[in-house]
Amino acid sequence: MSQKNIAGYMCSLCKKVFDAGDELYTCPEDGGNLDVLLDYDEINSCCSPQTIMDSRESSLWRYLPLLPVSDPGGQDTPIHQAGFTPTYALDGLKKELGINNFWLKDESRNPTASFKDRASAVVVARALEIKADVVVTASTGNAGAALAGMSAAVGQKAVIFAPKTAPQAKIAQLLVFGARVILVDGNYDQAFDLTIEAAKEFGWYCRNTGFNPFTAEGKKTAAFEIWEQVIKPNKLNKPLSVFIPVGDGNIISGIHKGFKDLAALGWLDIFPRLFGVQTVGSAAIANAFFAGNETIIPVEASTIADSISVDLPRDGVRAVRAVTQTDGAYITVEDNDSLKAIAELGRFGVFAEPAGATAFAGFKKALKTGLVHGDDPILVLNTGSGLKDVRAAMQAVHEAPVIKPTLDALKTFLKG
Amino acid sequence: MSQKNIAGYMCSLCKKVFDAGDELYTCPEDGGNLDVLLDYDEINSCCSPQTIMDSRESSLWRYLPLLPVSDPGGQDTPIHQAGFTPTYALDGLKKELGINNFWLKDESRNPTASFKDRASAVVVARALEIKADVVVTASTGNAGAALAGMSAAVGQKAVIFAPKTAPQAKIAQLLVFGARVILVDGNYDQAFDLTIEAAKEFGWYCRNTGFNPFTAEGKKTAAFEIWEQVIKPNKLNKPLSVFIPVGDGNIISGIHKGFKDLAALGWLDIFPRLFGVQTVGSAAIANAFFAGNETIIPVEASTIADSISVDLPRDGVRAVRAVTQTDGAYITVEDNDSLKAIAELGRFGVFAEPAGATAFAGFKKALKTGLVHGDDPILVLNTGSGLKDVRAAMQAVHEAPVIKPTLDALKTFLKG
Repeated sequence: MSQKNIAGYMCSLCKKVFDAGDELYTCPEDGGNLDVLLDYDEINSCCSPQTIMDSRESSLWRYLPLLPVSDPGGQDTPIHQAGFTPTYALDGLKKELGINNFWLKDESRNPTASFKDRASAVVVARALEIKADVVVTASTGNAGAALAGMSAAVGQKAVIFAPKTAPQAKIAQLLVFGARVILVDGNYDQAFDLTIEAAKEFGWYCRNTGFNPFTAEGKKTAAFEIWEQVIKPNKLNKPLSVFIPVGDGNIISGIHKGFKDLAALGWLDIFPRLFGVQTVGSAAIANAFFAGNETIIPVEASTIADSISVDLPRDGVRAVRAVTQTDGAYITVEDNDSLKAIAELGRFGVFAEPAGATAFAGFKKALKTGLVHGDDPILVLNTGSGLKDVRAAMQAVHEAPVIKPTLDALKTFLKG
Repeated sequence: MSQKNIAGYMCSLCKKVFDAGDELYTCPEDGGNLDVLLDYDEINSCCSPQTIMDSRESSLWRYLPLLPVSDPGGQDTPIHQAGFTPTYALDGLKKELGINNFWLKDESRNPTASFKDRASAVVVARALEIKADVVVTASTGNAGAALAGMSAAVGQKAVIFAPKTAPQAKIAQLLVFGARVILVDGNYDQAFDLTIEAAKEFGWYCRNTGFNPFTAEGKKTAAFEIWEQVIKPNKLNKPLSVFIPVGDGNIISGIHKGFKDLAALGWLDIFPRLFGVQTVGSAAIANAFFAGNETIIPVEASTIADSISVDLPRDGVRAVRAVTQTDGAYITVEDNDSLKAIAELGRFGVFAEPAGATAFAGFKKALKTGLVHGDDPILVLNTGSGLKDVRAAMQAVHEAPVIKPTLDALKTFLKG
């Protein structure tokens, strides 16, 4: 079994280190999320920031030397389109908000139109390495679509368990990608548990978010891109404040891991501040932060931002630490603020999913409440495309008027 | 008024040449579509295939020397993400079909998820050059979303007229991008005519597809990419057969123009064969081809592939010539073939809109009927994302089963 770059796994709770040879998910002792340990000296002996920046690979695979997997192949397929998403500097928005340094990283530009392609691409690479017959995941939408799409690209078999209440649009995407889709008469948590049982029973490789340590390894590539696209070229002399929508906590902990890797390599001068944004209806992790501890108490989540609607976060502790260890904070916003933010970003050409818009709404609140200031460098992460949830988008805008198809009718309307 | 690179306009019907200084749409004499004439000597004096290929610009703006507009600015916005889409070599698909050289160009990777971003990006650049206050277009979906998105990126005002029957998802996208959307109680053709009247009345710049000569100038950039990504690196010694979905005819005539530009520059050794694919329910241009003439007779279009559902094609004559002048052909397929093709492409990680899948269905028919052969190099153009029409996608796949969330239920199901 190939173990490229893996020096071991460390439990985020008990700090126990496990051998790289074991195929582990969470800590066998206490169920804590595992961090993949890398050999930073070895990485530094083979590459430098410059070799990365000189890469002609326009996907997350440009960071292959910093990843614990080998290239999955499929150079001319969608798996080599995952990541290396654009980072926009929207001048009009900066003017409106009276801020000088603002970037929006647009993950809707991933091949299946969400951030989840990063985790799925790396997990599929791992599955190929360990010659897994089947990769399986529980999902309510984006993660499953990403696994189905990345698997299809390289001919990997995939099984997706989703609650039968998942939106038809998201189920359609799973089915089109040829994954075996099994809907369960239950909620996401039940699908999650069944997936783990099924993986054990049938010897399938389980991608479940947070449960599989390689999801964070995929997600950390967004930190590498923020470093390469924003921090380095702009020679920032203040920490970059990064606003991230948070559901199960795996995106923010993955991005935290990415910056920690860069710092350990000696490639990062000023560590960014990470800000997690949740909606008030799905705030299990923010609640722990506000209570000043790491105790994640499940909630009955209800929010329009469906991709961050989570009862029981699967990566909560690391998600709290991602902000406490970086001088960041958690922020909660109302669903209405998220809807408004869809239209605010849209006016500058970015069609965000509700979760992505939530991050922007959180930034605006942080600016208002003084958590960040107008001269702080800011980056907001839009995690997916609004096309995946047009129902929410319709709530974010006013209905269009209807007129008769004549110039007279138009003139009357425009005067009105 | 800037007239970068424009040597004039030539009517595709009467061949009359008009001065570059005039702001023209169609031919004032006979209403024929106008070709933008370029000064090829001047282009060759400033650049070569190598200077293009050395460009670090990862968008259609890498072809700026071959375009009749200046850079619109907005370097760090979605307008500099339009074009330079990936071209996939899907090995699994090649094996299944028993063909050696097959590429799929994936236009769903454009910022608003369709091919139309190319036309809109170039028209918006033109609008900025001529200092147009407002750009207006008629649209049933993709073209409007593209104009709204590209306009939003650079702060250009946009007005979109759409039939009130347009899908809600597409209207949502227009509204989110902040365009002024006016629905008309009529069909697309009535919206089209009203747009032209309104543009004249209010001094707005009209983007209407085919009517505005710059839409084809934007669309031709796909030909440049096919040349740079497939024809040149693979040193093809046979003509590449390119399969293109056809509605109003402007995409195929734009791509034809691109290859003609390359040939005129002396940069293209073997001219590709262009194949237009229509569904039988919207085949006005194919009908003219089958009749052996250029007389476009309107139809009452009815097809599941809504972005190529057209009663009265606005660029029909040039679309017929795009195949007759390149040893290509028109092919018609049933809606059912298009639906099947959505699932066939999906299994390799590409989620196509029905129109894009139609092109693939047309290629398969051409292979079966001997129009092309297994050893011919083939490229199929997917024009947009399936996320824009999940209703169609759901018809392309089987429904997913529902089980109780228990291992026993799963085992019973898997045995069944």
